[in-house]
Amino acid sequence: MGGDKGPLVTIPAAVLAIKKSAQLHLILCGDETIIQEILIKHNVLEHSQLSIVPTTEVVAMDEKPSSALRSKKHSSMRKALDLVEQGKAQACVSAGNTGALFAMAHYVLKTLPSVERPALISSLPTHSEHQHVFMLDLGANVFCDSNILYQFGVMGSVMAEQVDGISAPRVALLNMGVEDIKGSDHIKLAATKLNDNPSVNYVGFIEGNDIFNNKADVIVCDGFVGNVALKTCEGVARLVYQKLKQVLSEHVFARLIGKILAPSLKKLFKPLNPDQYNGASLIGLRGIVIKSHGNASVSAFHTSILEAVREVERQVPEKIKMTLEQGLKERLE
Amino acid sequence: MGGDKGPLVTIPAAVLAIKKSAQLHLILCGDETIIQEILIKHNVLEHSQLSIVPTTEVVAMDEKPSSALRSKKHSSMRKALDLVEQGKAQACVSAGNTGALFAMAHYVLKTLPSVERPALISSLPTHSEHQHVFMLDLGANVFCDSNILYQFGVMGSVMAEQVDGISAPRVALLNMGVEDIKGSDHIKLAATKLNDNPSVNYVGFIEGNDIFNNKADVIVCDGFVGNVALKTCEGVARLVYQKLKQVLSEHVFARLIGKILAPSLKKLFKPLNPDQYNGASLIGLRGIVIKSHGNASVSAFHTSILEAVREVERQVPEKIKMTLEQGLKERLE
Repeated sequence: MGGDKGPLVTIPAAVLAIKKSAQLHLILCGDETIIQEILIKHNVLEHSQLSIVPTTEVVAMDEKPSSALRSKKHSSMRKALDLVEQGKAQACVSAGNTGALFAMAHYVLKTLPSVERPALISSLPTHSEHQHVFMLDLGANVFCDSNILYQFGVMGSVMAEQVDGISAPRVALLNMGVEDIKGSDHIKLAATKLNDNPSVNYVGFIEGNDIFNNKADVIVCDGFVGNVALKTCEGVARLVYQKLKQVLSEHVFARLIGKILAPSLKKLFKPLNPDQYNGASLIGLRGIVIKSHGNASVSAFHTSILEAVREVERQVPEKIKMTLEQGLKERLE
Repeated sequence: MGGDKGPLVTIPAAVLAIKKSAQLHLILCGDETIIQEILIKHNVLEHSQLSIVPTTEVVAMDEKPSSALRSKKHSSMRKALDLVEQGKAQACVSAGNTGALFAMAHYVLKTLPSVERPALISSLPTHSEHQHVFMLDLGANVFCDSNILYQFGVMGSVMAEQVDGISAPRVALLNMGVEDIKGSDHIKLAATKLNDNPSVNYVGFIEGNDIFNNKADVIVCDGFVGNVALKTCEGVARLVYQKLKQVLSEHVFARLIGKILAPSLKKLFKPLNPDQYNGASLIGLRGIVIKSHGNASVSAFHTSILEAVREVERQVPEKIKMTLEQGLKERLE
């Protein structure tokens, strides 16, 4: 039921997903009447790949995570997570309140052994057309100490390896300089810990201007910094797009060319637009949770469902668990 | 002598500046022989608006701030700051090692009364052609508590008012959400303090995607976050520029139009390029210090000299002192 537009986006996206994949079964958690109404419009009220789990409550987009956790036990968000915890679903996809989803997922699914906090991870484009870079945490944790940053490095490395098939993914820590003396004590300590783990290909500090330069496959930072960096990307992309449109409209020939270029420009800015390029994963939990953007479109929410399928197929949580256990074992030996 | 290219950039920029302003007198601190050689090339060895203060040491770009502070008492950087402290110069402009400049300026000039830490402040473009937004701290302080963030808000407000002539500048705190519950405790406390000061027009939290949306005239954050956000801007701008060039080169007509558009595109990306749009100020000190980008061009370093002149004319440190004292007085009454 979550997200700014609720089932008006999530249900059509679910219908799209099952039509594209015969293996997929989706459990729709939410207000039964509303869901049925939308399914009728799409002529799929009775469909073997769809089932409805009726819920009576909704977590509001501005609700405090603590309040949602305490009082919304019958919400669609909570029910979806309960289904994952009970093994009745293999992943939960939500466009709802990020803070509440994070708090509930943490409480219901619990973190993997040796993971203190889950993290929000997503991918960003790079200068190389066929490569992107994973970045975490994007806002699940305001502050992260060196242990947590270290665990994020390991988790990100597993994501890049399993989901993207990159061998020995390059892991970097986002910092305000590349020299060893730069940054806070906990970042310096996290660098030492990542360096000491032979199963992680740690490549050092990276600065904001190098995020897109294909110098790393995984970039680690705390949730505050990651959130600001990600949203700043969006802001700059919008600024440039708007100014570019202005430049193109000022020249007669350019106006014409602007129309010819429109599809290429759209393709260029799309990855920097969260509505299209989202599907952040909440990793470090004993289950798969995908967070779609609050104002995701049908196509964007569909992308998030596909991301969930990919992580189920690649068994991401199990792989993170194994790598962390192995890393800890090697460090303790 | 500072910056990646040293006097090869700073001296020609100084020559340019005195040619453009008959009121300006510049004191060139550095290796006398090298400076004279460059001045001879520009036919200005003897010039009433120029004087040389010879120095024997140079702070390396990768030198530790603590080491520079301790052992580089005869460096060009230290000498320039000493001249400001002694009242022999009204401002110091440097393209040198940021950390060292920050540490030395802090030590030599001292902070204004009721300012705990100086901050690096600069301006970024917005969607409105004639407006920009001041952002601080951009990397002088890794971590800032609520008091420091509050003081930065006051200082930024004075900069926007005095340098840009904006009345009641809108001051916002950069956060990972706009709701009151978002962010760390020190950000929430800084919000309360800024709100309580009637001489500051505090407008609330702002997210990364709204930096350029003209929702604030001053954006406050800690140096780590500001540095990452600023550099991420540069990174995204470069990514978009490179991809745009690629799109333009793929179409025959677009290649042609690309040439016609080149000046407009250059103008569009220039403000997002630190080399052109730099001249960050170190504010909160008992003197004016302008930090030019390490790899600044002659034109960029010239811009920094002009920024110094502007701040001298507007008496920025005195105004910050007065506003902070007034703000404190009102809060104590």
